Amino acid sequence: MTPVRKLVLLGAGLIGGSFALALKRARLVQHVVGVGRNAANLSRALDLNVIDSASHIAAEAVDGADLVLLATPVGQMGRLMAEIAPVLPADCIVTDGGSTKQDVAALYREHLAGHLSHCVPGHPIAGSELSGAAAAQYGLFEGRRVVLTPLPETLPDAVERIRALWQACGANVFDMTPAAHDGIFAAVSHVPHLLSFAYMNALLDKPEVAACLDFAATGFRDFTRIAGSHPDMWRDIALANRDAVVADLRANVAALQDLLALVESEDAAALTAYIDRASKARTEWGDRSRKA
Amino acid sequence: MTPVRKLVLLGAGLIGGSFALALKRARLVQHVVGVGRNAANLSRALDLNVIDSASHIAAEAVDGADLVLLATPVGQMGRLMAEIAPVLPADCIVTDGGSTKQDVAALYREHLAGHLSHCVPGHPIAGSELSGAAAAQYGLFEGRRVVLTPLPETLPDAVERIRALWQACGANVFDMTPAAHDGIFAAVSHVPHLLSFAYMNALLDKPEVAACLDFAATGFRDFTRIAGSHPDMWRDIALANRDAVVADLRANVAALQDLLALVESEDAAALTAYIDRASKARTEWGDRSRKA
Repeated sequence: MTPVRKLVLLGAGLIGGSFALALKRARLVQHVVGVGRNAANLSRALDLNVIDSASHIAAEAVDGADLVLLATPVGQMGRLMAEIAPVLPADCIVTDGGSTKQDVAALYREHLAGHLSHCVPGHPIAGSELSGAAAAQYGLFEGRRVVLTPLPETLPDAVERIRALWQACGANVFDMTPAAHDGIFAAVSHVPHLLSFAYMNALLDKPEVAACLDFAATGFRDFTRIAGSHPDMWRDIALANRDAVVADLRANVAALQDLLALVESEDAAALTAYIDRASKARTEWGDRSRKA
Repeated sequence: MTPVRKLVLLGAGLIGGSFALALKRARLVQHVVGVGRNAANLSRALDLNVIDSASHIAAEAVDGADLVLLATPVGQMGRLMAEIAPVLPADCIVTDGGSTKQDVAALYREHLAGHLSHCVPGHPIAGSELSGAAAAQYGLFEGRRVVLTPLPETLPDAVERIRALWQACGANVFDMTPAAHDGIFAAVSHVPHLLSFAYMNALLDKPEVAACLDFAATGFRDFTRIAGSHPDMWRDIALANRDAVVADLRANVAALQDLLALVESEDAAALTAYIDRASKARTEWGDRSRKA
């Protein structure tokens, strides 16, 4: 495979940094430029050899680039696309790591209308409550999934180039429509994050919160791990995928109210059946995942 | 410390079995009898040397016992106390591993009224989504917490005996009132379990659930780990701690409705503040826990 000559990371954090490291290890990139507003993070990325040079100015950085990865929270992607649009080399492929895809597709159409044949929207499924270049790691994408949601205009060669690069990072790559993507990830990622934030806030409102946190153990630890996630990133996701998120949050409120009614009425048989359904499904999922 | 002569496990599962194994390793128990209704589990417990003998009849098993540990779901404890009450040796200490303590205190009063000086209600904080004797392990309680909620009638010597045995299992032991215990564990254990069950059931109601589960990743895995827990045990806990659980579930519904309103109204600043509060608190808790 031909190596990338010049990879520009718009956002040199966990996702962008780990992509750069994996391509470096596979000898599939010659030069990596990191672009960001956080000077300390860029300097850390340089120190850790995640990037080879750093810039605060996206439009300068993309000069001569053959690959741009947008790896910021989704809320910053429109501005960055607008900045690079006038100077983007004609054959440069643009991809992204945004957690929502319908809104990112709309951003490509708005800001890179003349370049859509080379735009490959994507989403590496490798979240973490950690962020920043210091969290980047070579193996982050090994065995993980990456979803690509090509635009109707995207050239097949551009899709295959991005697919091959993610595969070189160890990922399994799937194609999907943006709407299917957003529905699935609202359900299994966005809403769990929001539920975990809501749970933490309800706990923080209790007068005895300090004693509660003192005795919180492994169940709490795992249930709330995702509540430690990055506020800007998750605000952007919630707003970008608002319709699917709102529908699923409403369904969760309804499920909780059903459960509340079972506990209040002390309906032991129905409560057992309610828990059993959830427990069986989760146990089967765990068994399948371990085998996969 | 004097070893236990004859320990009777009423319930030879994860908690009872791990208590027996830890005491055996510390050479603090001479004989362990396992009592249960599940013959396959008892036979597994014998094979694994978790117990030394097995019985289906609690009243026979406690003959000559100096320690009884009730380690079944809380819903079975009243019946077992009633069965052993007529034959319990006068100096035999009775303790339990129930996840709720106000209701268990009431059960002691109802069924073991003449024996309260030797009753030491307790709760080892070492939950798992696993259950059964096969899940028992020597080190389950190492570095974990055990809460004791002595009755006003409980003799200090009985409390100290149970404290010393749990400490010999590697646990840190705390005393608390039953009401304080139930409030804290509703908030940090019972309600997270119920939220996780409700989330799984809402997901299972979606037509596209199969695709969702197929793409569910590490966030989902951790958030729902406790949804795989034992239905009978968690039905009992929810009903036994009904008042605290209902209050906290209602607070969670309210927190979710607040969050829904922020997403629906696209109030980016308030949404950021909402997530930031949860994320900061969870991150601080994680930092403290790692140091502890």
